[in-house]
Amino acid sequence: MNFSGVFAPIPTPFDEQDRVDTTRLKAALQKWLATPLDGFVVLGSNGEAALMDDFESDQVIVAARDAVPSSRRFIVGTGRESTQAAIRASKRAAEHGADAVLVRTPGFFKTQMTHDAFVSHYTAVADASPVPVLLYNFTAVTGVNLQPAAVARLAAHPNIVGMKESGGDIGQIADLVSSTPVTFSVIAGSAGSFYPALCVGATGGILALACVLPEACTNLFTLTKAGRHDEAMSLQRRITPAAKLLGLQYGVPGLKAALHLVGYDVGVPRPPLAPAPDAAVAALRDAIAQFEEIPA
Amino acid sequence: MNFSGVFAPIPTPFDEQDRVDTTRLKAALQKWLATPLDGFVVLGSNGEAALMDDFESDQVIVAARDAVPSSRRFIVGTGRESTQAAIRASKRAAEHGADAVLVRTPGFFKTQMTHDAFVSHYTAVADASPVPVLLYNFTAVTGVNLQPAAVARLAAHPNIVGMKESGGDIGQIADLVSSTPVTFSVIAGSAGSFYPALCVGATGGILALACVLPEACTNLFTLTKAGRHDEAMSLQRRITPAAKLLGLQYGVPGLKAALHLVGYDVGVPRPPLAPAPDAAVAALRDAIAQFEEIPA
Amino acid sequence: MNFSGVFAPIPTPFDEQDRVDTTRLKAALQKWLATPLDGFVVLGSNGEAALMDDFESDQVIVAARDAVPSSRRFIVGTGRESTQAAIRASKRAAEHGADAVLVRTPGFFKTQMTHDAFVSHYTAVADASPVPVLLYNFTAVTGVNLQPAAVARLAAHPNIVGMKESGGDIGQIADLVSSTPVTFSVIAGSAGSFYPALCVGATGGILALACVLPEACTNLFTLTKAGRHDEAMSLQRRITPAAKLLGLQYGVPGLKAALHLVGYDVGVPRPPLAPAPDAAVAALRDAIAQFEEIPA
Amino acid sequence: MNFSGVFAPIPTPFDEQDRVDTTRLKAALQKWLATPLDGFVVLGSNGEAALMDDFESDQVIVAARDAVPSSRRFIVGTGRESTQAAIRASKRAAEHGADAVLVRTPGFFKTQMTHDAFVSHYTAVADASPVPVLLYNFTAVTGVNLQPAAVARLAAHPNIVGMKESGGDIGQIADLVSSTPVTFSVIAGSAGSFYPALCVGATGGILALACVLPEACTNLFTLTKAGRHDEAMSLQRRITPAAKLLGLQYGVPGLKAALHLVGYDVGVPRPPLAPAPDAAVAALRDAIAQFEEIPA
Repeated sequence: MNFSGVFAPIPTPFDEQDRVDTTRLKAALQKWLATPLDGFVVLGSNGEAALMDDFESDQVIVAARDAVPSSRRFIVGTGRESTQAAIRASKRAAEHGADAVLVRTPGFFKTQMTHDAFVSHYTAVADASPVPVLLYNFTAVTGVNLQPAAVARLAAHPNIVGMKESGGDIGQIADLVSSTPVTFSVIAGSAGSFYPALCVGATGGILALACVLPEACTNLFTLTKAGRHDEAMSLQRRITPAAKLLGLQYGVPGLKAALHLVGYDVGVPRPPLAPAPDAAVAALRDAIAQFEEIPA
Repeated sequence: MNFSGVFAPIPTPFDEQDRVDTTRLKAALQKWLATPLDGFVVLGSNGEAALMDDFESDQVIVAARDAVPSSRRFIVGTGRESTQAAIRASKRAAEHGADAVLVRTPGFFKTQMTHDAFVSHYTAVADASPVPVLLYNFTAVTGVNLQPAAVARLAAHPNIVGMKESGGDIGQIADLVSSTPVTFSVIAGSAGSFYPALCVGATGGILALACVLPEACTNLFTLTKAGRHDEAMSLQRRITPAAKLLGLQYGVPGLKAALHLVGYDVGVPRPPLAPAPDAAVAALRDAIAQFEEIPA
Repeated sequence: MNFSGVFAPIPTPFDEQDRVDTTRLKAALQKWLATPLDGFVVLGSNGEAALMDDFESDQVIVAARDAVPSSRRFIVGTGRESTQAAIRASKRAAEHGADAVLVRTPGFFKTQMTHDAFVSHYTAVADASPVPVLLYNFTAVTGVNLQPAAVARLAAHPNIVGMKESGGDIGQIADLVSSTPVTFSVIAGSAGSFYPALCVGATGGILALACVLPEACTNLFTLTKAGRHDEAMSLQRRITPAAKLLGLQYGVPGLKAALHLVGYDVGVPRPPLAPAPDAAVAALRDAIAQFEEIPA
Repeated sequence: MNFSGVFAPIPTPFDEQDRVDTTRLKAALQKWLATPLDGFVVLGSNGEAALMDDFESDQVIVAARDAVPSSRRFIVGTGRESTQAAIRASKRAAEHGADAVLVRTPGFFKTQMTHDAFVSHYTAVADASPVPVLLYNFTAVTGVNLQPAAVARLAAHPNIVGMKESGGDIGQIADLVSSTPVTFSVIAGSAGSFYPALCVGATGGILALACVLPEACTNLFTLTKAGRHDEAMSLQRRITPAAKLLGLQYGVPGLKAALHLVGYDVGVPRPPLAPAPDAAVAALRDAIAQFEEIPA
């Protein structure tokens, strides 16, 4: 199972009473299905999975799987701090129809998250998961770094098929590519450096920006694969301002606000997250404006 | 409700099948009750709460409350990433007999954790909690910093009675003391700087080391309060090596290994945590040896 | 030679043509000599030594030594990136009358500044220096950390008599005190944590704040030494706001502006440093106001 | 004046008495002139300029200029902490025949190095320098970051023609390219990410690795410019291990040791730098071996 192309890590809609809203979720997915996106991730970092309990997680998986046809990849985030909880979540995701699970590194006990701890954790999860496992490194959020040496070791596991690397360090992405077999998918998580990540061998991207500007992101992928580097570089520059705003600066509140601007209704962020301030909305509108995705 | 003195943030025993072991928990508490500790914290960072689900958390609260008499403070960690989950956990802890709840800052969405986000989160938790709330800042683990200005604002809430500050930055502890009313308890979380923290006005400590060396920690508190600064400084120096090893270096596995050395059986860490390596055990034995707590 | 008490690391006056101004320097020293300060440091970090050449440095040493009587300690900063340059500067300082030299760690080649590199560097300087050497660690500026283990080794050198530690990590100060002989002076560099530093055994302070509020700083020292901890802690809280503003926040421009407020004329900072902005001056005036040092 | 291609930031030879050795310098340059390198930088970070005085700096400039024909770019590092010293050094370099000066950011007073401070500093240097100025940002060494907004402003100065960015953050390089006119040269400083830097628009590289493997580095440049991305990516992967060892890990001692392996005699590092340890030499030999530059 190969992960090539552009995937959208979609947010979880919450209603005004701070409840998961599967009606909005299905409606938003219908809109995304009209775009050329290669697949979807639910319950990732942008899905506010860290703020949800297991019951709510199941609701989201079931509702989304129902909406996403088998022609598109359907990936579920199942990272947990404990190994046994990550295993349980992965099994549940598989039961509910996930094509693969995306398992973020544990990071609470930072100093104990050694090479060996990561290898044991992911080996146990991959042994138990009924569906393929994607590793997931997001140092800016977790404070730990799953390094190429550990990934190289884990890539030998038959049920570990790829990795999402959210950091913008292109050197580390290049290292990951050269430390793993050609069948192992290294997937970029940062839209602000998607083009150079593809240059050094990333197979695709799981990009928050792809929720908002799906065509721009898939075009960037296609141009690069076709060797049209000048056009790709130029498109990269055009999307970078929006990519930055949707990254750590405005986070999930920014993503939900930007989606509202382009006609998606994904509700409000869950507290302690607060809706994006007006200045954020204005900055996002400016960054998106040139793409003419904002409905008249 | 005042939090003066020395409190032990006790670990959660797991058995060899990776299950919560309340029998070991109760037995260990019986031993601790023979020491002069002023109280106990369950489900703190050292309690591996981040690796447990809500059902297991309830088991620990009920079993521990059963063992701890009302003459000792009984504090329960109820920090969660979402505001609603922190409220639910605090209500459950109160139902099961907690004297107070210790609520670690959310930290997953680091860049969104502004002054206002913290104030809203803790205000909502304190409004809803049936028992007093202690704030809890542990930057090395969460990657966010609950700063004195936010604490000053929250200290005005009638149900927020104190704070645990785990960082060793004595300047920040001094700032917290001077930014809050004299009735607000600033509790140190780092045994390696317990004496200087008391010097600048901390009212006590929640110290992993107090699980292992309860008398040394309570003596240090008593000496300082009595103005016997030279003896206190000298005792601080004696405990500092052990404090460091039990801190970020060896973490929970180190704490469990050290407790084993002094005659407590608190089982093994939960994966992905692994038992402390032999070198850690040897270093811990050396650091503890001078205190003659190791049974012959 | 012991370094007990409070020392002022004085700024270097520059005139409006960006030249060293020894006339202003001598006049300012006359004012400081009317205070109870135990001594002075020229050409430290606050002395903008990093912005000066060797000829200018000599001018400052000669002019200041001329003004400072032998009853006060006269210390000269002679840190350089290369070992041979640090040796040359130390010899020149001794020739011109320094009582001791304060030698900041090299820090340009950060990753090469190992334990061994520091030990070799300081051993060579101490072997060659005609006057006693004080080590100087200022991690926030240099990006390197001279750790207690290296200091312990260097403290055995007969010509290395003490150390200035500018960091506010009280644990590291405590470690330095307990790793070195009682004759070795551990001198605090951060006024915001001067009292707790004294609590854990620091022998004194080299404090930018002591240029501006000499009596407050010497009082804090005296109160602590007399065991009057409550008064000392209270005074520490009063000086902390000013200490912070004079630290990394406003730096040398802040120090020069604050001195202007209390009646000293030490000219302007050297470019690329710019004079403190109006907001900084206002904040400094507020922080100093309660001490009634500002002339009517 | 355009800076396209690959430039070698050559080390300064010191002899066994720790003196600048211009004989070795000229001999080494003769060897480098037989390679396709586009030019040379003396007195950069790798030139140990931070460890040298002005007289020694002049010696190096004169000797090197004498050896380098006008057909190759000859660039001199003239960064200093004070604005006036950077101006003086730039004038001297120009007098001695520099084609351009490379001016590293001041970084000692980190918190004062604002956007405005950088703009004032570089404007003053560029106003005064008789030859074109290249900005130089090396955050890992200086602890400050010259950001794209400041560079955009400075790029409008007629005497500021380009910039060396030593960080491996490809996103920042892309930002620099898109924030500056097409005539402004953005030069990469990190060989480990040279290919992706070129992908996003860097015009060339000033690469320590180019001292050791000049053909590999110039080939990588040529392949990328010719649109032969697969070959370029493959070559990038081959040079990355050596690039890393020569970067922060082994620094100048590593560079001098690696040059010794490939037949250059550039003496020893200046204390406090120490010669590379045996393990470093072995690792460097392994990383270089495949390029068959090591003489039989």
